Amino acid sequence: VRIATYQQLMAEARRIGPRAVAVAAPQEQEVLLAVADAQRQGLARFSLVGDETLIRSLARDNGIDLTGMDLIHEPDPQTSALRAMELISRGEAQIAMKGRVETKVFLQAALDKDFGLRTDHLLTHVAVFEIPNYPRLILISDAGVIINPDLEQRVEIVQNAIFVAHKLGIIEPRVAILAAVEVVNPKLAITLDAASLSKMADRGQIKGALVDGPFALDNAISVEAAQTKGIRGPVAGEADILITPDIESGNMLAKAITYFAHGIMAGVVVGARVPLVVSSRSDSHQSKLMSIALSVLLTN
Amino acid sequence: VRIATYQQLMAEARRIGPRAVAVAAPQEQEVLLAVADAQRQGLARFSLVGDETLIRSLARDNGIDLTGMDLIHEPDPQTSALRAMELISRGEAQIAMKGRVETKVFLQAALDKDFGLRTDHLLTHVAVFEIPNYPRLILISDAGVIINPDLEQRVEIVQNAIFVAHKLGIIEPRVAILAAVEVVNPKLAITLDAASLSKMADRGQIKGALVDGPFALDNAISVEAAQTKGIRGPVAGEADILITPDIESGNMLAKAITYFAHGIMAGVVVGARVPLVVSSRSDSHQSKLMSIALSVLLTN
Repeated sequence: VRIATYQQLMAEARRIGPRAVAVAAPQEQEVLLAVADAQRQGLARFSLVGDETLIRSLARDNGIDLTGMDLIHEPDPQTSALRAMELISRGEAQIAMKGRVETKVFLQAALDKDFGLRTDHLLTHVAVFEIPNYPRLILISDAGVIINPDLEQRVEIVQNAIFVAHKLGIIEPRVAILAAVEVVNPKLAITLDAASLSKMADRGQIKGALVDGPFALDNAISVEAAQTKGIRGPVAGEADILITPDIESGNMLAKAITYFAHGIMAGVVVGARVPLVVSSRSDSHQSKLMSIALSVLLTN
Repeated sequence: VRIATYQQLMAEARRIGPRAVAVAAPQEQEVLLAVADAQRQGLARFSLVGDETLIRSLARDNGIDLTGMDLIHEPDPQTSALRAMELISRGEAQIAMKGRVETKVFLQAALDKDFGLRTDHLLTHVAVFEIPNYPRLILISDAGVIINPDLEQRVEIVQNAIFVAHKLGIIEPRVAILAAVEVVNPKLAITLDAASLSKMADRGQIKGALVDGPFALDNAISVEAAQTKGIRGPVAGEADILITPDIESGNMLAKAITYFAHGIMAGVVVGARVPLVVSSRSDSHQSKLMSIALSVLLTN
């Protein structure tokens, strides 16, 4: 069944859960609130690997119930990330989540050879947005990890996003490679990459999706805009997945949706053996909760 | 008086108008509809430099009233752009607008030395957005002309946007230089440019505004997001002008606001002796009309 709203995503994650989540350095009010809420809703149970004293005092001051959570004392953030990954390598958790530790340090811990979480895939960020008055979930990548991808990295970004779309029940997702324009322009490298990615999908080098590009954002998501420009094909105006040229444009798109269109983002880093939740401090409570729900769905 | 909504912008443009607008190659239904509407509302009177037969038949088929408009027959789009600029150089129009002619060709005509429209400034695109549930107009640049600006070009982009903000009655606009992150990172060139631009404003090399950056979009437009990240200063969370890293991210931001947040864009190219209206086919009727209103305001 295709998941088209966050309500459906929550219902499905609840059906699958609870999953075991190892959180690195959760000594932060917002993280603890999200974690407690996710546990209450039956999504997950948590191992909190961090500064136990600080965690307990934050919980007490904010009325957060830690019942049923494992607390593992480790005040150093980097070491807490490594110990969270260790829990996963021992089969004691199926999802890793970061708290007050830098994303870079957290992802390096996930790539540490000692823990076997590494795969052949690149670690990439996939954002899933629910947007008011928009009829379906929209996936965006990469707005969080890969700064300026080359063509090989774009292939990984696309394939990882397709993986997430499949888990959301989108059997053959429509992938739009975004640029500022919808024509191939020798002076704009991204438009050449878009052409190559489209052809790679035609030839089976990218699997499980319909891939087309370059598109400007409007003709990727609006059938009317695509028609005005005379752009045809199954992806035009109906994209499920938007691949942005680089992290700057991805970030801009994601934040414009969040702050101007009041969309909510569920975000996850995929490409490791388990989903990695890397919500940032400025993400809302609901965004953090939906990120956990999404990662639960990905373990299924 | 500070203009905070399109309704106020229309009222002010009506008070100033009607201005004379020369339109190059207006043989397109949507352009003629916008032009007729602008004339009816007292914003402007029009010289239509284009394919007269086609213009008359489009007007007849769509019930568009051309009364009071000058028609100048010139079927070739490039020549029509040049002849529109000639009208301006002779003082017969104060604004140039493009119809069915490529933006590049239209701007080259504006830069033609024969017509004296060129100034010391770079031609840059400034977009002014009204966004539902957002308390003020937001200016964005450059999402339309300069592909990948260097620092000197960014200075021009910023200064041109400040010019437009002043015309909107924003006495000391708050300018945010956007990047994917809000810290200076030697590996991200835009963050270094942002630091330089901030300092140039401090030293009076950029005038008439408060300039700060780098900002991620959220901490430029949301006071709450800025506070969460501990970013201070008069621009944080309260930007009037958003300067995007490049045309791709600018385009992404503008189209996300249009298609996901249902904002309306008024766009104009500034830097020449007169405002240049370069609406594209996929822009809505209201967007085209507001672009004309904005350009009228700029002639004041």
